Amino acid sequence: MTHSALLAQIKSKKSFLCVGLDVDQDRIPLGLKKESDPIFAFCKRIIEATAPYCVAYKPNIAFFEAYGLEGWKSLGKVIHFLNQNYPEIFTIADAKRADIGNTSKRYAKAYFEQFEFDSVTVAPYMGKDSVEPFLEYEGKHAILLALTSNDGASDFQLLNTNGGLLYEEVIEKSKQWKNSNRLMYVVGATKAQALQQIRGRIPDSFILIPGVGAQGGSLEEVAINGLNDKCGLLVNSSRGIIYASSGSDFDLKAGDAAKELQEQMAVHLTHKGII
Amino acid sequence: MTHSALLAQIKSKKSFLCVGLDVDQDRIPLGLKKESDPIFAFCKRIIEATAPYCVAYKPNIAFFEAYGLEGWKSLGKVIHFLNQNYPEIFTIADAKRADIGNTSKRYAKAYFEQFEFDSVTVAPYMGKDSVEPFLEYEGKHAILLALTSNDGASDFQLLNTNGGLLYEEVIEKSKQWKNSNRLMYVVGATKAQALQQIRGRIPDSFILIPGVGAQGGSLEEVAINGLNDKCGLLVNSSRGIIYASSGSDFDLKAGDAAKELQEQMAVHLTHKGII
Repeated sequence: MTHSALLAQIKSKKSFLCVGLDVDQDRIPLGLKKESDPIFAFCKRIIEATAPYCVAYKPNIAFFEAYGLEGWKSLGKVIHFLNQNYPEIFTIADAKRADIGNTSKRYAKAYFEQFEFDSVTVAPYMGKDSVEPFLEYEGKHAILLALTSNDGASDFQLLNTNGGLLYEEVIEKSKQWKNSNRLMYVVGATKAQALQQIRGRIPDSFILIPGVGAQGGSLEEVAINGLNDKCGLLVNSSRGIIYASSGSDFDLKAGDAAKELQEQMAVHLTHKGII
Repeated sequence: MTHSALLAQIKSKKSFLCVGLDVDQDRIPLGLKKESDPIFAFCKRIIEATAPYCVAYKPNIAFFEAYGLEGWKSLGKVIHFLNQNYPEIFTIADAKRADIGNTSKRYAKAYFEQFEFDSVTVAPYMGKDSVEPFLEYEGKHAILLALTSNDGASDFQLLNTNGGLLYEEVIEKSKQWKNSNRLMYVVGATKAQALQQIRGRIPDSFILIPGVGAQGGSLEEVAINGLNDKCGLLVNSSRGIIYASSGSDFDLKAGDAAKELQEQMAVHLTHKGII
């Protein structure tokens, strides 16, 4: 998916919401547990309820991988369902992959050819040749970890190096990589104070912001510091939406929670003159 | 698996060889392509031919993941075959995973509970809480990327920080993490000159060394700089063994290649007084 197709959807839905699909079988409402594939059944109803309000879905691959073969079957059904029914919606495999070049090629093949996601999150530690294989696909994107939302972010990402903090080095070096126009970046919502400065380094790139809601980040701070004149943000909420209710009305409540965030986002998009 | 069980196997086989299973369907000998699961059939024959000479197997998860559901089925069969027939052999899921804590828990569940590997490789960028969930399992190990064998290693791992080079910081901080006695480390064979200094920082830890063979690393340099008095090394070879021949004698040639490395390793183990 191109930036302009993503922007068109953002304008039409007045939203830059990404819904994270971190599906824990133990938190699926009882009524769905008799389904042959409860995880897919849950995701399908969440997607149907929230699709009017979001522009992206982000299955968290670990939550599928944890169930082994059954989990991968569910993931296959989820991405197929999305691509068949909502081809306009941007899809993110939240997989945090990366390895030496010949191996990263395989991960890119997995997510871009086997599962047909629009993008995959990647980790920077192994450097340029571990990320570039993800950038070889036209219309596909690698979303590079820059500054994450967790406590451990400070262990290494905030270390001082000669070129600034480590995450700043990651951003600056990545701009030199081949097809870097296909890069997006992960910046945690809990790090909103750094976002304005990061936006200055990557004025045109999309930034994926996890950590709003359960992890404690503020949408308003993120919007103020992160929006550019073509939006440039995807703000993710997972648990706050998909577990908004544990009852049989889980999908309605998820839709309500997504709509509430969408309405707040519409205000910011209007204020910025994007819609 | 405990360190002492691993050491017992090293002594008995006179080897610290790990065979990497990076199986590319395009490189599987023609004769196997008619099998219902060529990847598993290939791995099975490689394992049967090389098991006398190695103490560990390292399936490269990307190479399975690239084939989608079929690849995961093959991986399941490979690890089951190993655990059933060679329970004494150490198994490594080369997956380079790590994410925020609640997500890393899922990856740990995938590799330690669903697939029952002894260990999994993990990436350090997201810090302490992204790695500790892998250290919660008794007898299981997380193998942390320190200094990798690829060109991109120099992009970030060799950056100067206040506490030394980034990979040195990674090693030093990781030693403070909970259950750090269950950590092992990845150090590329192409970085043998750094190995001696790394051994000084982690005198008792096992170090997994990829990059011997196709990637250009030297076994001798690795052994001289990396062995401790309980061995403390696992040296991986993938392509040099599994693709030693592209003909129907692929397994015999793989066995020969493994045996050749094992014999070189026996010399180093003897020299060090370990056997």
